[in-house]
Amino acid sequence: MEAATAWLPLLLGAVGVGVAFALYRVVVAYPAGDAKVTDIAEQIYIGAMTFMRREFTILAVVGVILFFLLGFGLGWSSAFAFVVGAVASGLAGFFGMRSATKANVRTATAAHTEGAAQALTVSFFGGSVMGLLVASLGLLGLGFLFLIFGANPETAVIIQSFGVGASSVALFFRVGGGIFTKSADVGADLVGKVEAGIPEDDPRNPGVIADNVGDNVGDVAGMGSDIFESNVGSIIATIAIGTTLGASTAIYGSAAGLMFLPLALASFGLLCSIAGIMFVRVVSAMAPALALRLGTWVAAGLFILVSYFVVDWIDVTNAVWWAVVAGSIGGILIGLVTEYYTGGPPVKHLAESSKTGTATVIIAGYSLGLQSVVIPVIGIAIIILIASQLAGLYGVGIAAVGMLATVGFTMAIDGFGPIADNSGGIAEMGGMGPETRKITDSLDELGNTTAAIGKGFAIGAAALAALTIIAAYIQTMIVRFPEFELSLGDPKVIMGLLIGGTIPFLVASITMTAVGDAAFAMIEEIRRQFREIPGLLEGREGVKPDAASCVDIATTAALKKMILPGVIALGTPVFIGFVFGPVVLGGALAGALLATVLLALKMANSGGAWDNAKKYIEKGNLGGKGSENHAATVVGDTVGDPLKDTSGPSLNILIKLMAIVSLTIAPLLGSSLF
Amino acid sequence: MEAATAWLPLLLGAVGVGVAFALYRVVVAYPAGDAKVTDIAEQIYIGAMTFMRREFTILAVVGVILFFLLGFGLGWSSAFAFVVGAVASGLAGFFGMRSATKANVRTATAAHTEGAAQALTVSFFGGSVMGLLVASLGLLGLGFLFLIFGANPETAVIIQSFGVGASSVALFFRVGGGIFTKSADVGADLVGKVEAGIPEDDPRNPGVIADNVGDNVGDVAGMGSDIFESNVGSIIATIAIGTTLGASTAIYGSAAGLMFLPLALASFGLLCSIAGIMFVRVVSAMAPALALRLGTWVAAGLFILVSYFVVDWIDVTNAVWWAVVAGSIGGILIGLVTEYYTGGPPVKHLAESSKTGTATVIIAGYSLGLQSVVIPVIGIAIIILIASQLAGLYGVGIAAVGMLATVGFTMAIDGFGPIADNSGGIAEMGGMGPETRKITDSLDELGNTTAAIGKGFAIGAAALAALTIIAAYIQTMIVRFPEFELSLGDPKVIMGLLIGGTIPFLVASITMTAVGDAAFAMIEEIRRQFREIPGLLEGREGVKPDAASCVDIATTAALKKMILPGVIALGTPVFIGFVFGPVVLGGALAGALLATVLLALKMANSGGAWDNAKKYIEKGNLGGKGSENHAATVVGDTVGDPLKDTSGPSLNILIKLMAIVSLTIAPLLGSSLF
Repeated sequence: MEAATAWLPLLLGAVGVGVAFALYRVVVAYPAGDAKVTDIAEQIYIGAMTFMRREFTILAVVGVILFFLLGFGLGWSSAFAFVVGAVASGLAGFFGMRSATKANVRTATAAHTEGAAQALTVSFFGGSVMGLLVASLGLLGLGFLFLIFGANPETAVIIQSFGVGASSVALFFRVGGGIFTKSADVGADLVGKVEAGIPEDDPRNPGVIADNVGDNVGDVAGMGSDIFESNVGSIIATIAIGTTLGASTAIYGSAAGLMFLPLALASFGLLCSIAGIMFVRVVSAMAPALALRLGTWVAAGLFILVSYFVVDWIDVTNAVWWAVVAGSIGGILIGLVTEYYTGGPPVKHLAESSKTGTATVIIAGYSLGLQSVVIPVIGIAIIILIASQLAGLYGVGIAAVGMLATVGFTMAIDGFGPIADNSGGIAEMGGMGPETRKITDSLDELGNTTAAIGKGFAIGAAALAALTIIAAYIQTMIVRFPEFELSLGDPKVIMGLLIGGTIPFLVASITMTAVGDAAFAMIEEIRRQFREIPGLLEGREGVKPDAASCVDIATTAALKKMILPGVIALGTPVFIGFVFGPVVLGGALAGALLATVLLALKMANSGGAWDNAKKYIEKGNLGGKGSENHAATVVGDTVGDPLKDTSGPSLNILIKLMAIVSLTIAPLLGSSLF
Repeated sequence: MEAATAWLPLLLGAVGVGVAFALYRVVVAYPAGDAKVTDIAEQIYIGAMTFMRREFTILAVVGVILFFLLGFGLGWSSAFAFVVGAVASGLAGFFGMRSATKANVRTATAAHTEGAAQALTVSFFGGSVMGLLVASLGLLGLGFLFLIFGANPETAVIIQSFGVGASSVALFFRVGGGIFTKSADVGADLVGKVEAGIPEDDPRNPGVIADNVGDNVGDVAGMGSDIFESNVGSIIATIAIGTTLGASTAIYGSAAGLMFLPLALASFGLLCSIAGIMFVRVVSAMAPALALRLGTWVAAGLFILVSYFVVDWIDVTNAVWWAVVAGSIGGILIGLVTEYYTGGPPVKHLAESSKTGTATVIIAGYSLGLQSVVIPVIGIAIIILIASQLAGLYGVGIAAVGMLATVGFTMAIDGFGPIADNSGGIAEMGGMGPETRKITDSLDELGNTTAAIGKGFAIGAAALAALTIIAAYIQTMIVRFPEFELSLGDPKVIMGLLIGGTIPFLVASITMTAVGDAAFAMIEEIRRQFREIPGLLEGREGVKPDAASCVDIATTAALKKMILPGVIALGTPVFIGFVFGPVVLGGALAGALLATVLLALKMANSGGAWDNAKKYIEKGNLGGKGSENHAATVVGDTVGDPLKDTSGPSLNILIKLMAIVSLTIAPLLGSSLF
């Protein structure tokens, strides 16, 4: 491999950023609309930026502490890599969300003045900016570090701190954002729809702006940082496995080749994502839903084809390519299973259970969630089986990289959802009329489907990425202590397994409670405004709610309530590792991984199914809106909200953060404390 | 050790049966009451026996198949041991339930004519019969096999099939019984209380007898067979570990001593249980609640003391005794944590969440359940830590044996609950008036507390027993293939871990759905009777509901719906073991164990807390019965019913059955298929 190849990730990363910028220019070139809607959009934009700014302020403090901890513990190169990782992830989230907050109002206006096709273009391009930034900035960051430190095993260790940086940002964006978005959503709905009897997204409701801000900070920035972390995490861990396995991986290719392959795959995957985005642009005018669906296969199919030549070019054995195929196809299938459970026949069945009341809706949704984990988790197991049979642990890592290589496209259609959702809110608040609302509603419905697929994909990707990182941790320990072993026959491993398994349960419980508490504060504030601002509830001309104070409450609550989950995620591996030793820690990681996958999938799918069962009835089935059946599913939806948008996604972050922290501190751990 | 010692388990087992018989004589010596109540009791008794007979019929068929499979696969000694195990467990369940169905009506009559103290005595003695039979018949069965086959390593293998027999019976009693009891409960309540507006346990309701039958088949026979299985399972597995570890356990004691210790501990534990029962008998007249609580500590404390000398007598190292202590105390503490979450301050907090509606009750209960797993599971981890530090895997097995040694007492206070519950139903149906009902209600409340402790204990015991069996499986494989290893760095193990983790989720989902379906059939039947039997709903003199048909429906549904969970529990380890090999199977067992403990505890505690939150409001708090708050908690209770009484307990059986089947087929598995 020539030195010039090392520039590839930087080069293609730059191409990705360039395309993202071009799409952003296309988005902002669309008219923002009249003063009324731009004012609403401005409030959402300012709210989102306020939240971001406050997040970044705390992140800066946490970052400085971690910088010095890493610097003194592992060296200043690692500390530097940490900063690069945090900055790259932060930039992706920041500009991605900026794009989303520009696209939302332009989507509404396009729907109002130009029709469905233009509205779809704006919203999809708005999401694509996020998708491409997530993929590109990861490449740029890692490529940059390789260029500085050189492509050698030491660098493989240094870039692990890049992962810690990315994970720290994801913790703030995904957990903080998740608490923000649901507390605003639940708070605004409970007072507005239930108590005051005004429609959803009514401009009189002080919580509506916060609700729309939440879509951006939770579903755009939060989701983006989650996927960013999975993507770079699996690349980093696969590189680590490639360098630590030594002789046993030599059968697959040269050390340099194995180290470079993950980056090369991600680089060319980015190009395939761009191709997928272009495909959707061309086909969507004819059949929007089909375009999004086919686009996924186009991007993945192209990537599988291209990756064959990439593997050949880097002179890695062909067997590794099959691991790419397994990961790439597996990821899509996991997403489709999620779609089945949250949008297919099971949802209709769930809606029918409302005939016997609220309790049966909850039982049926709970049962659906339990069942929904089986196929995706066995799917992940099969990916592991195929990949490891072909190329051992390195193959498992490459499968994860393959699953995430076209992340630019996956994230693009996922980011489209909240933009469409927001555009509906803006159309409602801006009084754009039922015709416009109809277009934004159909976009929203499309967005819900892609979001469901994205959610399943995100959990699968997080699981496989975390698994790869855990494998790298084990390999790192074996290199240091050849007698290191994590045998299930060792009571210490079982002990770790059990302790690790409880952590996702604890974090899920904490984040669920956090949403409840924050929503309660929001409810109090909205009630206060309705009570104290004269003319607000009556809708008197010129009277505006104090939306900023609601944003402030959600922000404060989110940042306060994420401290404990954050401390658990960062602190548990450190505590277990240094107090109980690396063997117990290894068991704990496996236990936490298993519990996370099962619980996160269950929560996401129960929540998604309840949401869509409600929507199914709202379309006029089983008595429609206002019926007792509807009321029963509304309870289901409310229960599902924190499950699918806060606790479930938080677990993705938790497991990756635990894994990457363990991998990072691995060089400091003793062989076994007892 | 002399040959005479081998008679010890048989001797003390016989003593236990003798005491159980004596207590049974005491119970039946109490007057059964007037014709009206004895008629009701007779119907419950016949219903329970009908269910038992039909269970035994199917069990016989399954038993013959398994007998020949085991005979041809492992030899006819194993097949014989299987029969002994099934018969012993079946007898314990049969006579225990017989005692319960005699004690329920006598408790009601004693409450009516003699007062609270006598009522407590009858119900507690009724439960004690079950408890002592569970402990004694396990000893008799295992002692008998040792006497026939001799105390040698071959016998250690043969008795594993005893465990398969016990597990098969437990599958029928616990899973079938669990589906029966909840479908009857939910069906009778929904039509009776909600639709027809008649009180709970009203004699006009055709489903009420089935509901009361359910308490006996589910909570007495089901629970008993579960605990029986845990008890003998941990003894069998510890013996297996003692014989397979060979040289590495020689530091703890002689081979014969290590093999005999679990039986000796169980034998003396039985005596301590009898002492605990006597203690409660004496003290309960003064302070019933305190007596039950102190009794647990008396039995355990005495056992810890006695076991010190037993360990010394058998000439096993003193370190092993500390493992006994860890298990014994750990089991009680896990029970107390369960009590805290299902009866302590968290329940009050849960009840308060009803102020903001049904959705928040569900969210709070869900969150409570998630949180409640943390301390018990870490508790189990600490027991493993202590026990394994002291005496390796053998120590872990002994800790499980220690936890279960006083099972005679634990099961006695646990069996007391459903008897008290039944007596309330009989008092209501028999029109014994509010004074009697007040006494039975207070007994019921006491029973709920002991049942909650028992449930937590049962899950902890099942987990530790299953873990011990899994450890024995690993040891057995290592003896056969010294290179056998279950390393978490091996993708095959991770694959197994993931697949295994999904199985409890699948089984929980199936059993939850089963309850819903069976309850629906029950609802249809009760509605039909109210519609078609003239004068029934009006309460015309002499008009009786057709209770037997409701029992029949619940029986048919229960037996039909347990086929799939049964096939999964028995078939999965066989399928994975022979298709994917013993390494994947080892991973699957660990994954299933972790997922089971977490899910079973969460389900049991969420369900228990919802139940008690409802009862808290029914006592007049937060608006009391009939308030909106009450309605919200009723939904919670209905959701929790299948969780805590069907799906959760089914998982206990699932994991032990999977483990014991794996241990049993271990000699037939290849080293690794890929």
